[in-house]
Amino acid sequence: MSMRTSYCGLVTEQQLGQTVKLCGWVQRRRDHGGVIFIDLRDREGLVQIVCDPDRPEMFKAAESVRNEFCLQIVGLVRARPAGTENANLTSGKIEVLCHELNVLNASVTPPFQLDDENLSETTRLTHRVLDLRRPQMQYNLRLRYKVAMEARRYLDEQGFIDIETPMLTKSTPEGARDYLVPSRVNPGHFFALPQSPQLFKQLLMVAGFDRYYQVTKCFRDEDLRADRQPEFTQIDCETAFLDEQEIRDLFENMIRRVFKNTIDVELAAQFPVMQHSEAMRRYGSDKPDLRVKLEFTELTDVMADVDFKVFSTPATTEGGRVVALRVPHGAELSRSEIDSYTEFVKIYGAKGLAWIKVNDVSKGRDGLQSPIVKNLHDAAISAILERTGAQGGDIIFFGADKAKIVNDAIGALRLKVGHSEFGRSNGLFEAGWQPLWVVDFPMFEYDEEDARWVASHHPFTSPKDEHIAYLESDPGKCLAKAYDMVLNGWEIGGGSVRIFQEAVQSQVFRALKISDDEARAKFGFLLDALQYGAPPHGGIAFGLDRIVTMMAGADSIRDVIAFPKTQRAQCLLTQAPSPVDERQLRELHIRLRQAESPKV
Amino acid sequence: MSMRTSYCGLVTEQQLGQTVKLCGWVQRRRDHGGVIFIDLRDREGLVQIVCDPDRPEMFKAAESVRNEFCLQIVGLVRARPAGTENANLTSGKIEVLCHELNVLNASVTPPFQLDDENLSETTRLTHRVLDLRRPQMQYNLRLRYKVAMEARRYLDEQGFIDIETPMLTKSTPEGARDYLVPSRVNPGHFFALPQSPQLFKQLLMVAGFDRYYQVTKCFRDEDLRADRQPEFTQIDCETAFLDEQEIRDLFENMIRRVFKNTIDVELAAQFPVMQHSEAMRRYGSDKPDLRVKLEFTELTDVMADVDFKVFSTPATTEGGRVVALRVPHGAELSRSEIDSYTEFVKIYGAKGLAWIKVNDVSKGRDGLQSPIVKNLHDAAISAILERTGAQGGDIIFFGADKAKIVNDAIGALRLKVGHSEFGRSNGLFEAGWQPLWVVDFPMFEYDEEDARWVASHHPFTSPKDEHIAYLESDPGKCLAKAYDMVLNGWEIGGGSVRIFQEAVQSQVFRALKISDDEARAKFGFLLDALQYGAPPHGGIAFGLDRIVTMMAGADSIRDVIAFPKTQRAQCLLTQAPSPVDERQLRELHIRLRQAESPKV
Repeated sequence: MSMRTSYCGLVTEQQLGQTVKLCGWVQRRRDHGGVIFIDLRDREGLVQIVCDPDRPEMFKAAESVRNEFCLQIVGLVRARPAGTENANLTSGKIEVLCHELNVLNASVTPPFQLDDENLSETTRLTHRVLDLRRPQMQYNLRLRYKVAMEARRYLDEQGFIDIETPMLTKSTPEGARDYLVPSRVNPGHFFALPQSPQLFKQLLMVAGFDRYYQVTKCFRDEDLRADRQPEFTQIDCETAFLDEQEIRDLFENMIRRVFKNTIDVELAAQFPVMQHSEAMRRYGSDKPDLRVKLEFTELTDVMADVDFKVFSTPATTEGGRVVALRVPHGAELSRSEIDSYTEFVKIYGAKGLAWIKVNDVSKGRDGLQSPIVKNLHDAAISAILERTGAQGGDIIFFGADKAKIVNDAIGALRLKVGHSEFGRSNGLFEAGWQPLWVVDFPMFEYDEEDARWVASHHPFTSPKDEHIAYLESDPGKCLAKAYDMVLNGWEIGGGSVRIFQEAVQSQVFRALKISDDEARAKFGFLLDALQYGAPPHGGIAFGLDRIVTMMAGADSIRDVIAFPKTQRAQCLLTQAPSPVDERQLRELHIRLRQAESPKV
Repeated sequence: MSMRTSYCGLVTEQQLGQTVKLCGWVQRRRDHGGVIFIDLRDREGLVQIVCDPDRPEMFKAAESVRNEFCLQIVGLVRARPAGTENANLTSGKIEVLCHELNVLNASVTPPFQLDDENLSETTRLTHRVLDLRRPQMQYNLRLRYKVAMEARRYLDEQGFIDIETPMLTKSTPEGARDYLVPSRVNPGHFFALPQSPQLFKQLLMVAGFDRYYQVTKCFRDEDLRADRQPEFTQIDCETAFLDEQEIRDLFENMIRRVFKNTIDVELAAQFPVMQHSEAMRRYGSDKPDLRVKLEFTELTDVMADVDFKVFSTPATTEGGRVVALRVPHGAELSRSEIDSYTEFVKIYGAKGLAWIKVNDVSKGRDGLQSPIVKNLHDAAISAILERTGAQGGDIIFFGADKAKIVNDAIGALRLKVGHSEFGRSNGLFEAGWQPLWVVDFPMFEYDEEDARWVASHHPFTSPKDEHIAYLESDPGKCLAKAYDMVLNGWEIGGGSVRIFQEAVQSQVFRALKISDDEARAKFGFLLDALQYGAPPHGGIAFGLDRIVTMMAGADSIRDVIAFPKTQRAQCLLTQAPSPVDERQLRELHIRLRQAESPKV
């Protein structure tokens, strides 16, 4: 490298006495005792440059320098004076005595200090280029790269082949909303951007590639929440001739290795495996955060005949559920804290939050403090205390409603309490990495609104062999060969063994009330492919954005994406999306709906 | 692997006497002397399975088997009988005596034989899944993967970081036509799919990432030719703080390594470097195929005063050109061959093709045979013979017209003759790999139609330092720090050192007659970024599809893409693009133009 001999951040005492050439940006300039000190920054870190006035031309250039100027420095590496070493820097034992200073490019004054921790997201995204200069963002994006590359290395060793699937593909309005792309050559026709390469990767298995992967962009036109982006990245994998257990082992190894080789974290040697039904029973969630040491206690069966409609109605209604959540040491929670939890569970549709403080468990009913105890008969109270294993000093919260509301509300409460200051200081939260597999998902969920069964995962997921018989007779009973990898309460990967027999696939479409004509129109190419000796196959897709967000300890996936979009799906840097020329629309055979034309 | 112990194609004499479990597809079944032979295929190749009737259940299953059935086999590896070995197969010395045969999935009869070499492209693309089972397609896509992965490994070692740039970005109607994506959340606004990540990678350099790469899809809504697809893949790279020579060296090494480590080809230790002007002068092309041993001879200066308007008019007209193409041994070409070349050059706008057959160079004018010699004075004839170095037995072709027509027509003729049977058998074509760099491209080309200068490369390319002064005064004189990597007549990569100073960038926009307002509206974010100490930077993008097509010796880039589109930009497999629901259009705030609504 002729413009430089080293990265700034990597100059060390190894180079003492050597002349180095460095390029980087001015992080800070200080004038001290007639000498100018410049912290010069590049992607590897900082180095201290010392500019003495005894070289007048260089010193004059150094005086002109401001923050974020891009400089080239030639200088001598020397030890820092004793007592001025900086142990936080790789280059902290040395400084570079500047002989020559070239301003490669000046900078206007940045709109904010790069080390300002309190920037609004709008500021950061508008000035993303400067925001990306910050060491945290440099770290995040390099970590992202390392994660993806480590996954590639592992998959390569395992015989997986990266095969690119189309970005301009077919709209199949099932699942989320598609992004559409009008075709110029085929008037009135549209491509869709892929929500996932699902069908293509299955076709590649039928085509005999055996093992496929791709680190690829997927698109969903959804209303954006904190952890969603219109375009997101999957590590998408598929393999033939492996069963569910083998597939899970293969990818568990991948994730273990990625964590070890990027952030030096040893994940459990064997991830726990939990049935979906157990996860729902114990945590009200299909992605339980096992760091939180709280569990549901099932009470539906003992609340049928209590004199308290809030409990007895759901306990006697099909699809209702009553649970307790015992919180050790929770009796110390104040009334206002309990009130705030009550408000919190309402977000999830709960009507309120019943509770019992346990003062002395040996006194039975008399040892309890609660507005609801009077409504519960002795058997119910005994069951609550026994099943929860309550101790003096605990609080027990209750959820009673439709099962979904109970699961969502008490599941969220469980996390809220566990992650709170109170939870952390009372041993209800164990920091670290808690991966698990959730398996045996139901094939179908009943959609009340449409009054029909819909696929829980997607309609290409294989039912368990012994459940194929239920497909049309009793869909609700049918479990799938589907599995999610969950880490600290986030679903980081999801997959399944796929249907590889055309007859079973057709049965699933019928169970979903997709007519033969509709199935053929949308998925005819898949049904055709399955007829030509499709192999048993399955796979998984990992959410790269999420995994890196967790690893980086970032607040949002926007912090691990170079150029993310806002919650209104806009890029504040480039101003995309933007109005386009009428000529462009004409070529695409579309026009804007009148009322909604923007002001250009 | 519990379903199999080995790939079919990898069973060798190493496993003699062992029991193996194999999965694969039936390539062929033969019944011979009461025994059934099955060629079982997987991605690694074929293995011969022998089914003896002494295991009746297995034999019955084997009898049911047809081509493309997916089977699992358990059997004993034994040596093939002497004389029946197949040296073309890795497994050619062994066969597997079948103990157990499971039909994993039956197949209906394929619509064609997989080894049929004469399938139409329509058939192949419609039944792409079967087409992809063919060994050539398996090879092509694995080669593609190896090329990309080898490039990744090299770039990783060189400190490059893969950073994903947005797929949903801003329409900048410059260059090719954009694919547009209507925004649902922002009515009347559109995203564009990227034609390249050009501006984002420059922003990443300004952000200090130092070295960036991405293997990424790019999109151009162009009328498709044989070697174009609506979506194509670039190995896109950018680096800061390197000069043009260093950048070229870095990527020349990458390509050399990729060729060596994937197809074991040693490219030249140092690629020749040719100025754009020299390439045009000698070959009439900015991507000369150096395998063809024919060159232009410049004659413009000696044809001004000949009594032959076909030559003298272009020779005396601004922008005209007269050249000769000497073809050794070409005197043996028949009149009908010459006529067919005459028709051929007309495709490129030439009005005809003048020629001289050289019988005896020592006799001067009298040794020549040609319809045009009579119109040329002695000085012209001497110049032709001397400059071309003509020998008895040669033919000399002439191009005379506007320079562009001459370059295109005679450039194409040069290739046509060189690649022909005649050229190959007369030493005018040297097989092998002939890479070169073409450098010093002009900054601008004059667009006759729009009567303005347009960027030859793109408007972010840096002019040569000493040519900045010409930017506005004499754009045609201005050369750029732009370089193409050319291989066997294909441009496989192109790049440039970029403008990193806002003032120079603004000058270039002015030279292109892009007003300040327009520049700000389209590229404001780039101009802003350049103001914050942008570093010197440059890069290159390689066309992965083309490189792999060449390496695979394929006829079309469609043969190295898993699911390509036709020349009408359609996917024959999935039927994309397709009509969409009115509801979807309404959500996107667009409607179809009436006259052009498709029949759904």
